[in-house]
Amino acid sequence: MNDFADQMRTVAEWVEKGLNRHLTADGLSGVGTPPERLIAAMRHGALNGGKRLRPLLVVQAAEVFGVDRERVLPAALAVEMVHCYSLIHDDLPAMDDDDLRRGQPTVHKAFDEATAILAGDALLTEAFALLAQSGLPAAVIGELATASGVAGMVGGQMRDLEGERAALDEDAIIEMQAMKTGALIRGAVRTGALIGGADDGQLAALTRYGALAGQAFQLADDILDVTSDAARLGKATQKDAGRHKPTLVSRIGLEATERRLGDTIHHAITALSMFGKEADGLRATARFFADRDS
Amino acid sequence: MNDFADQMRTVAEWVEKGLNRHLTADGLSGVGTPPERLIAAMRHGALNGGKRLRPLLVVQAAEVFGVDRERVLPAALAVEMVHCYSLIHDDLPAMDDDDLRRGQPTVHKAFDEATAILAGDALLTEAFALLAQSGLPAAVIGELATASGVAGMVGGQMRDLEGERAALDEDAIIEMQAMKTGALIRGAVRTGALIGGADDGQLAALTRYGALAGQAFQLADDILDVTSDAARLGKATQKDAGRHKPTLVSRIGLEATERRLGDTIHHAITALSMFGKEADGLRATARFFADRDS
Repeated sequence: MNDFADQMRTVAEWVEKGLNRHLTADGLSGVGTPPERLIAAMRHGALNGGKRLRPLLVVQAAEVFGVDRERVLPAALAVEMVHCYSLIHDDLPAMDDDDLRRGQPTVHKAFDEATAILAGDALLTEAFALLAQSGLPAAVIGELATASGVAGMVGGQMRDLEGERAALDEDAIIEMQAMKTGALIRGAVRTGALIGGADDGQLAALTRYGALAGQAFQLADDILDVTSDAARLGKATQKDAGRHKPTLVSRIGLEATERRLGDTIHHAITALSMFGKEADGLRATARFFADRDS
Repeated sequence: MNDFADQMRTVAEWVEKGLNRHLTADGLSGVGTPPERLIAAMRHGALNGGKRLRPLLVVQAAEVFGVDRERVLPAALAVEMVHCYSLIHDDLPAMDDDDLRRGQPTVHKAFDEATAILAGDALLTEAFALLAQSGLPAAVIGELATASGVAGMVGGQMRDLEGERAALDEDAIIEMQAMKTGALIRGAVRTGALIGGADDGQLAALTRYGALAGQAFQLADDILDVTSDAARLGKATQKDAGRHKPTLVSRIGLEATERRLGDTIHHAITALSMFGKEADGLRATARFFADRDS
């Protein structure tokens, strides 16, 4: 676990540095000069000390194929920019209406609503600009777009909002979460695998791992929402229940959800059985999802 | 001009048909099932009888190189999806707060604000998914992302909002408009040229044409805002002045703006002088920008 903690910290610093360098007037090229206030809002939403778990998964999946970290940098940054844009939009008053994110004012609180909408739009667009310029295969661009689009992350957010009005059953909650959170986590793993040149069998195994890791991440999130305190999480807790958000904890109870989390982690690690030590990073991340306390 | 009117109608129908086919549960593939309400909102924002001028420019720029219309279809649809997403987000209450668009309720009026934000996000993301799957060169994806991002369309929208608070001078208005409207029009022309395999000189000439055509389009828009009536335009008019929007008409007057429009069209057509009949489509579109009445 020490190796894992080291890798997680190293990757987080590497991503922070990459975003910090890219999200500047020099890094963001185009037809005109990007407005300072918009860059500031993008930075506020992206440079906030996140754990950078999605870039970590890109790196670890590429590692399975011996691919150097530097080669996946544009993909790691792009996945994280898509994640950060989704948080900015999800926090908006018309959506989840959150004032805090990782202990800091959300983008629409620190700036204003219009700026937050545009900063999200800009981060999403920049993710694709960066990938297009990276020389990485078009399949990587397709993967990120599909994972984060109408039949993935954005569609999942829509189902989540609809779920506040209509009671979702267990299966519907699982599908919603597989889209809202799971799709991008699965997409991060597949991105690393695609860059690594995975064959069909390897890609199928890693896709299965990614889907299960995404499920585990969300189960842990739902559990933390009822068991953790706001100070540790850096955002309001127990808000899911207050808002009638559909979660598995509210549907099947805390204990059954914890049991399911354990099973899911076990299946995720089993999905990697065709790989040796080169997949230890992915195994450690799956275990971390069960143990994390924030 | 008859040929032009025919081509414009044909391309508009072709784009409408393409979007109508693509924006369905079958056309939109991903990890899960796209939510029906989200597809409906995307369709509301995209299938609204627009003139489809940006796809027309993609087709006409590709025509210069003898490239068949069908080959540029994914790019034509992607450019239009990006345009439609920008309209959905620009119409939001936190942005321009518009109730009508082409005579119909805007997406947040017909649905709700959260759905409109997500429908915009989904259209933008789908544009890149479609391009990535199309087999078109990565440069096309980069072009669209750069044209519509922080140093292009989104940055221009930010400058426009800032311009409501701070008085912009003539140069600042021109840069804002070059980003907000001009960048995507220029990008549409460059997209067609890139697919056509333009050499450096050809690309430079078409880029110049695109930038000037974008300027002309915006000048005509500013003029129409003060001279047209709401029924013809399908949206509120004279709203720019009411909102202290920075436009050239408010800064240099109607007559000077009309003169500048004529000059800009002239320069746009001059930029095409290295091309023969194969660029007649682009010439006709530039002329149309001066003559349009809605």
